[in-house]
Amino acid sequence: MLTSAATIAADWQVSAWFNTQAPISLVQLRGQVVLLHAFQMLCPACVSHALPQAERVFRQYADAGVAVIGLHTVFEHHAAMAPVALEAFLHEYRVTHPVAVDRPSAGDPIPQTMRRYAMQGTPTLMLIDRNGRRRCQEFGRVDDLSLGVWIGRLLAESTAA
Amino acid sequence: MLTSAATIAADWQVSAWFNTQAPISLVQLRGQVVLLHAFQMLCPACVSHALPQAERVFRQYADAGVAVIGLHTVFEHHAAMAPVALEAFLHEYRVTHPVAVDRPSAGDPIPQTMRRYAMQGTPTLMLIDRNGRRRCQEFGRVDDLSLGVWIGRLLAESTAA
Amino acid sequence: MLTSAATIAADWQVSAWFNTQAPISLVQLRGQVVLLHAFQMLCPACVSHALPQAERVFRQYADAGVAVIGLHTVFEHHAAMAPVALEAFLHEYRVTHPVAVDRPSAGDPIPQTMRRYAMQGTPTLMLIDRNGRRRCQEFGRVDDLSLGVWIGRLLAESTAA
Amino acid sequence: MLTSAATIAADWQVSAWFNTQAPISLVQLRGQVVLLHAFQMLCPACVSHALPQAERVFRQYADAGVAVIGLHTVFEHHAAMAPVALEAFLHEYRVTHPVAVDRPSAGDPIPQTMRRYAMQGTPTLMLIDRNGRRRCQEFGRVDDLSLGVWIGRLLAESTAA
Repeated sequence: MLTSAATIAADWQVSAWFNTQAPISLVQLRGQVVLLHAFQMLCPACVSHALPQAERVFRQYADAGVAVIGLHTVFEHHAAMAPVALEAFLHEYRVTHPVAVDRPSAGDPIPQTMRRYAMQGTPTLMLIDRNGRRRCQEFGRVDDLSLGVWIGRLLAESTAA
Repeated sequence: MLTSAATIAADWQVSAWFNTQAPISLVQLRGQVVLLHAFQMLCPACVSHALPQAERVFRQYADAGVAVIGLHTVFEHHAAMAPVALEAFLHEYRVTHPVAVDRPSAGDPIPQTMRRYAMQGTPTLMLIDRNGRRRCQEFGRVDDLSLGVWIGRLLAESTAA
Repeated sequence: MLTSAATIAADWQVSAWFNTQAPISLVQLRGQVVLLHAFQMLCPACVSHALPQAERVFRQYADAGVAVIGLHTVFEHHAAMAPVALEAFLHEYRVTHPVAVDRPSAGDPIPQTMRRYAMQGTPTLMLIDRNGRRRCQEFGRVDDLSLGVWIGRLLAESTAA
Repeated sequence: MLTSAATIAADWQVSAWFNTQAPISLVQLRGQVVLLHAFQMLCPACVSHALPQAERVFRQYADAGVAVIGLHTVFEHHAAMAPVALEAFLHEYRVTHPVAVDRPSAGDPIPQTMRRYAMQGTPTLMLIDRNGRRRCQEFGRVDDLSLGVWIGRLLAESTAA
């Protein structure tokens, strides 16, 4: 569901990046529609559905003004999903969009951005509008048709809205 | 591809309707986004892809201002796809959105609306904006993500644009 | 489920054939494993599942001694599924295995072979062994793995068993 | 392709087991049909196709005399696919059939059993008959219908053949 809520999304806390030469901050993406998808490399629904869906959006709509960012929010099986494993995973699955590693918290299995955004699990999809406001956050599978309609609506909005 | 072309779409020529109590004219739908999909009940890509896709749009977006109309454009195997066969087909496939039978032409295998819209075959998808202008016409399969983005963009436009 | 039941299958009653130059009787197929699938051209599960599955078996195993026969058992919407419609359907769906039209009964909506075999609906799959005995009859979808195992077992049996 | 070759399959070399209380040797399985599938937890075709296929065979045919064994043949990204990662993977993907870790070789990226069986990559499917002979080895995807027919044929063979 797309809301008209006016809250500016806080920036992400990241400990490593893949598929980008420099770190990307949310503020830098102002003016674009941002699709952030939180995933874990050993989460079946992320691997079969959310990640290839995000990659499709990236390949089809990057030029139209949609920024796609993957956020690796490891909150279980930490030893199995370290950055070295993620790097191999991204290579084998031909993921080409930028992926950030959510910064771990000392004494909390849930990493910092996941905690800040109050995400319930993976996969979680977040849409941020051209003005940096969080407009949609969905836990679980989102079908392509619904995602497309949300993206189309957000693309139609102007920056100064 | 969504164009900004300003041509008002001509109305359809229909010989029978299903899933509606009264005939529907394109003019009546002014103010709504219209998804018109041309199909044949014995066209495999229509049955497996375009028709269930149109039904999904109808069920998810009718309340949001999207009108979905099926147009049965029989241009081959006419004896096999008469209205009595179409009626059985729509019942068995649980199609609930309005379906029009494109009016046959005397001496032309291609029916009148298909000829007027210069459609190349089935399935063909057409999107008409809130102001009655034809904005998109695609022959063949259209993926859900692209269709969603187009619908989202058209929904975001105002009537008086 | 494959049974060891010893009943010889009665022959089919057919009013028309497609995809074969001459009528085919069950007796002629003695020595081969026979996959008979009963379908209707407007039955969604037949069109999406059972018919392409039968066609796969035909293309992969005809040379290995599996005969595949489609049986068009029209028991509803008779006007919509006449032989002229079936012919167009088989052409559009690229069905190449032999298809028989189950002979209609006067005063019974259920055709003769369907009645004789006590089939409950469509799709129904029947397997007949090299000695002409009915070994399996399943109403509804059968997965490829199960069907393959049954066919493999029957192919391994000898004719004089 | 199922061959009639008479070579007895060498036993596997394993450094760890999952989903079994005790190690399993190939000799112990004499009398059963054995499906061995070599995979890597970060191999996309293994995850989407070969592994769920093997699990289906296990759930449907274990009682019929088919033993299913997964063999984790890590030959690349060794740091990402250690046993601790495999354990998390098997848990998340609900794999319940026995899985062996192919024993690493000192000075060879290819583990011992993979080398011994001359496997070309993952996924690789191997079928071993009731008498311990290797009858089939396929690199890449195998469809369910073909796999079913092979299993059906091998189940029909006697032990003393």
